[in-house]
Amino acid sequence: MTKTPAYDALAALSQRLHHFDHLRAIAGWDQAAMMPPKGNDARAAAVAELSALMHRLRTDPSTAGDIERAGQEPLDDFQRANLREIRREWRLANALPESLVQARSLATARCEHAWRSQRPANDWAGFVVNFREVLRVGREEARLLSEQTGLSKYDALMDRYEPGMTSVEVDRVFGDLRQWLPGLIAQVRDRQSRETCLEPVGPFPVEQQRRLCEAVMHLLDFDFEAGRLDTSAHPFSGGVPEDVRLTTRYREDGFLQSLMGTIHETGHGRYEQNRPRNWLGQPVSSARSMALHESQSLSFEMQLGCSRGFTQLLAPMLATHFGAQAALEPDNLYRLVTRVNPGFIRVDADEVTYPAHVILRYRIERALIEGEIEPEDIPGLWDAGMMELLGVDTRGNFTNGALQDVHWPDGLFGYFPCYTLGAMYAAQWFATLRGQHPDLDSRIAAGDLSPVFDWLRENVWQQASRWTTAELAVRASGEPLNPLHFRRHLENRYLG
Amino acid sequence: MTKTPAYDALAALSQRLHHFDHLRAIAGWDQAAMMPPKGNDARAAAVAELSALMHRLRTDPSTAGDIERAGQEPLDDFQRANLREIRREWRLANALPESLVQARSLATARCEHAWRSQRPANDWAGFVVNFREVLRVGREEARLLSEQTGLSKYDALMDRYEPGMTSVEVDRVFGDLRQWLPGLIAQVRDRQSRETCLEPVGPFPVEQQRRLCEAVMHLLDFDFEAGRLDTSAHPFSGGVPEDVRLTTRYREDGFLQSLMGTIHETGHGRYEQNRPRNWLGQPVSSARSMALHESQSLSFEMQLGCSRGFTQLLAPMLATHFGAQAALEPDNLYRLVTRVNPGFIRVDADEVTYPAHVILRYRIERALIEGEIEPEDIPGLWDAGMMELLGVDTRGNFTNGALQDVHWPDGLFGYFPCYTLGAMYAAQWFATLRGQHPDLDSRIAAGDLSPVFDWLRENVWQQASRWTTAELAVRASGEPLNPLHFRRHLENRYLG
Repeated sequence: MTKTPAYDALAALSQRLHHFDHLRAIAGWDQAAMMPPKGNDARAAAVAELSALMHRLRTDPSTAGDIERAGQEPLDDFQRANLREIRREWRLANALPESLVQARSLATARCEHAWRSQRPANDWAGFVVNFREVLRVGREEARLLSEQTGLSKYDALMDRYEPGMTSVEVDRVFGDLRQWLPGLIAQVRDRQSRETCLEPVGPFPVEQQRRLCEAVMHLLDFDFEAGRLDTSAHPFSGGVPEDVRLTTRYREDGFLQSLMGTIHETGHGRYEQNRPRNWLGQPVSSARSMALHESQSLSFEMQLGCSRGFTQLLAPMLATHFGAQAALEPDNLYRLVTRVNPGFIRVDADEVTYPAHVILRYRIERALIEGEIEPEDIPGLWDAGMMELLGVDTRGNFTNGALQDVHWPDGLFGYFPCYTLGAMYAAQWFATLRGQHPDLDSRIAAGDLSPVFDWLRENVWQQASRWTTAELAVRASGEPLNPLHFRRHLENRYLG
Repeated sequence: MTKTPAYDALAALSQRLHHFDHLRAIAGWDQAAMMPPKGNDARAAAVAELSALMHRLRTDPSTAGDIERAGQEPLDDFQRANLREIRREWRLANALPESLVQARSLATARCEHAWRSQRPANDWAGFVVNFREVLRVGREEARLLSEQTGLSKYDALMDRYEPGMTSVEVDRVFGDLRQWLPGLIAQVRDRQSRETCLEPVGPFPVEQQRRLCEAVMHLLDFDFEAGRLDTSAHPFSGGVPEDVRLTTRYREDGFLQSLMGTIHETGHGRYEQNRPRNWLGQPVSSARSMALHESQSLSFEMQLGCSRGFTQLLAPMLATHFGAQAALEPDNLYRLVTRVNPGFIRVDADEVTYPAHVILRYRIERALIEGEIEPEDIPGLWDAGMMELLGVDTRGNFTNGALQDVHWPDGLFGYFPCYTLGAMYAAQWFATLRGQHPDLDSRIAAGDLSPVFDWLRENVWQQASRWTTAELAVRASGEPLNPLHFRRHLENRYLG
C-alpha cells in the first residue's frame, strides 16, 4: 500500500490531463498548419468538447481535499515541487466561475474574429466596441484573482504567465531601461549610419529557404525524429515535448524573416524537447514560465543567432542555398542581423528597439486593468509613447499601432513583459556562459555549439519547474534577474 | 419540455462521442502522415486515454435504459433510423467484456508489431506463435457475439463491418463467382496476350505525380476546402467528413499506383464529404457499411477510373504532367489500366483477379473462426487455393502469401468479403446509371462526370445509414445485391 495515496491520485490525474493535452496540442498545430478552411467549425466544436472535459477534471471537487491531504504525506523534494505546481494549476483552474470563463471565451472569440478585418481596415472605433467587453472580463478576472492571491490586479494576471513576477519589479527593471535605452538607440543609429550594409538580392526560392531552415535546425541540434518544421500564417512552437511542431513562413523577397524566425522557434522547441523525460506528464516537468521560454528562443535567435561567430557559420550555408553574393558574406551578414531601425511593428523589431514596444504595451495594459484609463485613452498614449521611446509618428495609424497584436483582442493581459524579461534572462545566461567559456565566440565560429546547449540543458531545460524562476536564475547564474547583463550585451554588441 | 427525453439524451451522447472521434481521427491521420518516430509512444498513450474515455461513455449503464425508453417515445422515421444505429453501436460496444477488449488489444498489438519484421523475413513459424492468441481472442469474440445475435460465429464478426450480410449469402455469391471467374481470367489473358501494350517510360518525378493526383481529384470534385492529399506508407482515407484526409504513396518508376490509389481513396473521401450535413454527429449519418464504402472507392477507381471514357480524359493530363509518350496515349492507357495479370498480391491485383484473392481469404478465415482448421493448416490451403483460383505457385513464399495482409495480425476477421461485395455493388450502381444515361461513356469522355456524382450523391452518399444495406440497394437500383452486374461488367469490359 502506498504511503502517499492523495499525492498518487493527483499524479494520476495530471497524467490523464497530459494525455488529453497531447491531443489538443496536435489538433491545434493541425488547425494552424494543415487544416483546410471548412474543417474549422467541426474542429472548434471537438476541441471545445475536450477542453470542457479537461476543465471538469481540473475542477473536480475531490481534488481540493487531495491537495490538502497530499501536503501532509511523506513526499520527497521532487514530489513537493510537483505538488506546488499541481496546487498552482488547480488554483488557476478553480479561481474563476464557469460563467466568467464562458464570458471570456465569447468576448475574445468575437473581438479577435472582428479584429482580423478591423486591423487591415484601420478601424479603431469598431475594435473598441468589442474590446470593451474583453476588458470588462479581464478586469473581473483580475479582481477575483487579486482577492484570492493578495496580489495587485495586474500582478494577478501576470502571475499566470510569469509566476512570482510583480509590477514593482517590472517597474524597476523597465524604469531603468527607459533611462538609457533611447540614448543607446540614438548612439547605435548614429554609428550604423556611417556603415555600409548591402541588401541581399532575391528572389530566394521558398524550397531553398525551407532547406536552409532545416539545415540550420540540424546545426542547432533540433531532433527531427521528435519534431517537424512546417509553415503557418503566424509562426509558433507547438506540439508536445516528444513531438515538437515548429512553424515558420516564407516570402520569396527575403530569407531573414523565415530564417531568424525558425532559429527563434527552435529555441522554444529545444526547451520542450529537453524537458526531463521521466517527469513528463507531471506539472513539475513543464517549462518554468513564459519569460524563461522567451529566454530560450532569444538565447537562440539573439544571443547565439545574431552573434558574430554564428554569422560566420551561416554565411557559407547561405551561399550554398542561394548562390554567392556580397551581401551574404560574414561581415555584411552580421551587419544585416544587427541593424537597428525604430519601426511600427513589435514582431519585426530588432533586439535594441524591441523593449520600447514592450514598455509601451506594459504601461497601457497595466493602467487598463487597474482601471486608471479606458480604451478611448489608448490612441493618445500610444502616439505619445512611440514618439517618446522610438521617435516614431504613429498618429492615425491603428493598423500598425495599437491594433497590431493579437494579445489584447485575445484578452492576454500580463503577457507582454515576458518578452523583454526573456531577453534579459537570455543576456544573463550568456554572461554566465561567457564567464565559463572565455573562448565561446571562437568556438561558435568553429561550429562547436555544445557549450551553449550543454549549459542551457543543464541549467534551464532539465530544471523544468523544479524551482521558482528566481531560484532557477540564482542556481544557473548566481543571482536573480539582473538587467545589467542585457544593457552590457547591447553595449558590447552595438557600441563595442 | 421535450417529448423525447431519452432519445435526446442518446443524441447528446452521440454528439459528444462524435467530437471525441474527430480528435482521434485527426491524431490517427497525423500518426500515419506527419508524426516523427519518437512521437509514437506518447501518441499511443494519448489515444488510448481517449479511447478508454469513449468506451466508458459508450458503456455507461444509463444508456441501456435510455435506449429502451426511447423506443417508446414518439419518434419520426429519421429518429427511428438513428435509434436503430445507436442501438447497434451500443450493442457492439457492450457485447464484449472489458477483459476481452484488453486481451484483443494486447494480442493484436504484439502480433502486428512482430509481423512487420516477420513478413519481410518470410517467418511464418514465428508469426503463428503470436497469431494463435489473436485467433483465440477472435474465436471468443465470435462465440460471445454469436450467442447475443443468434448469428453463426463468422457471421457475427462480419456483421460488425457489413450489417445484415451472412455467410450463406456470401457463399451463394462467391460460389457463383468461383464457377465462372477462372474461365474468364483465362479468356481475358488469352485475348490480351495478342494485344500490344506499351510500358510507360519513367522516371516520373514525385512532385509531378502529386500535382497530377491533385488535378485528378479536382476533376473528381473532391473539395480541397474540406480535405487534403498527403503521403503515407499505407494509403488510406481518414479525417472527418468536414475535413477528409486522403493519402497516397509515390514511386518514381511508375505513376499508375499513386494515381489509381488516389482515385480509389477519392471515392471513399467523397462519400465522407457528402454525408448529410444536418445529421452529422448522429450514427444515422455514418457511411452505411464497409461494402458500401468499398463500392464508392471502386466506383471511382474501377467503374469510372478504368473506363474508356475516363482514360480519354486522363491522357492529355498525363502528357501535361510527364511529357508526351506513346504509352500515355488513350488507347494504350486504357490497355494499361485494364491489363489482367494473376499475381501474388491482393492490393496490386486488377479487378478481374482481385475476387480470387478475397474468396481464398474468406474460405480460410471463416474456417478458422468456426474452428474447422488451425493456423498450421493455412499454408497448405493457401498454396492449393492460389493454384486453383489463379494458377499461381506460392509454395514457401509467405512474404507474398498469407503474411501479406495486416487484417489477420490485426484480428479483423470478417472484413475481406467487403472488398468484393463492394466491387459488385459498384457494378450494380453503374448498371443502373447506364440504364438512366445511355450516353454515359461519351459524357465521361467529354469531361461531364455529373451524372455519376449526382447519382451517387442522391442514392448512396446522402442516404448514409438511413436504411439497411439491402433497402438502400433496392431504393437505388431496384434490387438487392445482384452479382450478375459484376459478371456482365467484366465480360463487357474485357471480352466485349
